Amino acid sequence: MKENCIVAQSGGPTVAINASLAGVIDGVKKSQSYTRVYGAIHGIQGVLNNQLLDLSLMALSQYPMVNTLELSPAMYLGSCRYKLPDFAEDAAPYQTIFRRFDEYNIAAFFYIGGNDSMDTVHKLNEYAKSIHSDVKIIGIPKTIDNDLMETDHTPGFGSAAKYVASTMLEIAHDSYIYNIPSIVIVEIMGRDAGWLTAASCLARNNYSRAPHLIYLPEVDFDETRFIEDIRAQMKKNRTVIIAVSEGIHDKDGNYISSATAASDKFGHAKLSGTGKALEYLIKANIDVKVRSIELNILQRCAAHIASRTDINESFALGQAAVKYAASGMTGIMASINRVSNDPYQWIIEPTDVAKIANKAKTIPSAWISKSKNDVTQDMEAYLRPLIIGEISLQYRDGLPLYLPVDHLI
Amino acid sequence: MKENCIVAQSGGPTVAINASLAGVIDGVKKSQSYTRVYGAIHGIQGVLNNQLLDLSLMALSQYPMVNTLELSPAMYLGSCRYKLPDFAEDAAPYQTIFRRFDEYNIAAFFYIGGNDSMDTVHKLNEYAKSIHSDVKIIGIPKTIDNDLMETDHTPGFGSAAKYVASTMLEIAHDSYIYNIPSIVIVEIMGRDAGWLTAASCLARNNYSRAPHLIYLPEVDFDETRFIEDIRAQMKKNRTVIIAVSEGIHDKDGNYISSATAASDKFGHAKLSGTGKALEYLIKANIDVKVRSIELNILQRCAAHIASRTDINESFALGQAAVKYAASGMTGIMASINRVSNDPYQWIIEPTDVAKIANKAKTIPSAWISKSKNDVTQDMEAYLRPLIIGEISLQYRDGLPLYLPVDHLI
Repeated sequence: MKENCIVAQSGGPTVAINASLAGVIDGVKKSQSYTRVYGAIHGIQGVLNNQLLDLSLMALSQYPMVNTLELSPAMYLGSCRYKLPDFAEDAAPYQTIFRRFDEYNIAAFFYIGGNDSMDTVHKLNEYAKSIHSDVKIIGIPKTIDNDLMETDHTPGFGSAAKYVASTMLEIAHDSYIYNIPSIVIVEIMGRDAGWLTAASCLARNNYSRAPHLIYLPEVDFDETRFIEDIRAQMKKNRTVIIAVSEGIHDKDGNYISSATAASDKFGHAKLSGTGKALEYLIKANIDVKVRSIELNILQRCAAHIASRTDINESFALGQAAVKYAASGMTGIMASINRVSNDPYQWIIEPTDVAKIANKAKTIPSAWISKSKNDVTQDMEAYLRPLIIGEISLQYRDGLPLYLPVDHLI
Repeated sequence: MKENCIVAQSGGPTVAINASLAGVIDGVKKSQSYTRVYGAIHGIQGVLNNQLLDLSLMALSQYPMVNTLELSPAMYLGSCRYKLPDFAEDAAPYQTIFRRFDEYNIAAFFYIGGNDSMDTVHKLNEYAKSIHSDVKIIGIPKTIDNDLMETDHTPGFGSAAKYVASTMLEIAHDSYIYNIPSIVIVEIMGRDAGWLTAASCLARNNYSRAPHLIYLPEVDFDETRFIEDIRAQMKKNRTVIIAVSEGIHDKDGNYISSATAASDKFGHAKLSGTGKALEYLIKANIDVKVRSIELNILQRCAAHIASRTDINESFALGQAAVKYAASGMTGIMASINRVSNDPYQWIIEPTDVAKIANKAKTIPSAWISKSKNDVTQDMEAYLRPLIIGEISLQYRDGLPLYLPVDHLI
């Protein structure tokens, strides 16, 4: 008799992926469809290698543990970057996985991840069909990049956006204090899609227009135009603050970090990120104080400033995934369907995972300004609801209290 | 009749320097010794250039404005990097300043800043004595570097330390998720003193020992030893996390960012910070995944995670400065004298500003481990109280609500 389930996490971390895990655990507790819920350590590799953590006690335990899990950054179960082969060519890992499912009486497998992870969900589901297995395979989205198809936005993105916007506002306050002209470049994650860079626009308010310029990977980057944009802004603002995606590239697809400013002018691209490359490009053209700031992984791990909306949605998606599996669905991902911006309303719906796997959603051109160096009001209206609300985090000894991850260290 | 006062801010920003400004405003309100309190825009230059903002309404206004000011990052009055000449050689700026004092009936001048600003306080006080002026000149400390003499610690440091430790913990969670060996370098501010880098030790808890290694500018950096340290840590830990000061240097005083790893091996030092230089040094010696993260100005402007202890102390120092001036003192800085670590108790005392100006306090060698790559328990005991307590920040539209700085933009 199949009565248990497994949940795992994969890909890059976000501050909301543990909220989805907490949602799965809570969903299992409430649905009463599964006796035990196991967590596979390091994604699907934990199933392959028989590294399963029994999370059932957490499901049954008092609220605080699941609540702490919900607000903890990164991935409680660890991650992997493992791509399943095509099972027509190599069925061995599939056989191991489904043997493990039998061994643990698994009725459902939940995979929390991005488009690579949805490829795993899709392949496992196709394999299950081919062997007439009735194990339900369900995807739960996550990525700070917000580039998954078929969902209005992705868990983890709202918190990263809140971090980016708040940090941009704080950088603006920091930069306005001197009475000399200066330029600040803020490099933001998202190699192929500019959603997170675009979210920096949320920092604007009735006294500060930073970022004054926004450069997205959806627009071919042009050095000459960039310098012109800055000169134009410098006529209006003493301090010019620029948000730039790590993934900007020229019309031939060469990343700016490796292809243009740095390597042309300084001979060594490897030492330089996009922000640094632009810093040197500006210094070579304009006599002004320039600073570049790379937000780096802080934008995906700063759980202390998570978006309450994001955490709530991520938790709800985990709960919904359990409901879908318990009601017999498989090969689907729990998706967010936005009903309205104002008031912000959304519902969760199942979506065919085949439509999501290995695809990426970029910013529609209608949401990029005609000047190509900013985003539109519609973009801001889309983004704003996602960063609303703060979490109530416990602190101990002056530090955020997160769920210990001894089992990963 | 002299009845008013001026307050100004100088040097690099912190998230607590506006708390001291709020403390001055509150102190003026409570002391009733001054009719008006003016804020000089851009430090002492605001006095020279007659850019004075009347803050009296803020002093009289409802609590929320001063409260919002207290929790706002950077400098509400703007900053400057202006060094007064020796008045024996050039008295002109002094004459302008004291003429301005007369013009506005100024009885006291409060300067919030670091050791450069205390040089200004000292010189103004010496000049005042030389012309028999009775304007009181008072310093209020601030710097994230914690390197001022004669005060147990500096306002702004506790909040920066809380940011560094919290971020280090979040980086650790982010880094533990993969099951492959990796090294993470976190570059922290403090060119001459390692206090803020040392504060990363506060991230350690009962499951995570990150940072596993700490490199301070108080210790001469040795590349060979560094690689040996890492190899030793890699035997015990899959993930090795390293805190490093931007100011580490070899025994001849050459900064690592410009002198060794980067320029020797890659030919271009300018593109590279300390963290990047070490990243490439490790890659050249050990076959392992390496990432470097520069906390950059975020560690001095992330007001949303300020330390309540730090904000309270900074506010109290501002209040105390007003009391000192009103009671007739001059040429002093309001300093923190720690009475005990546990329970954490402190008092505020006036200190002769001559003992502070242009001097820097580095970490005592007794607080650096014998291995030279860590700090001691005594250091941790000194640091811990400074990061305790969280602020209650208002948010609007998903972002921290800070006091507008239209007048600086």
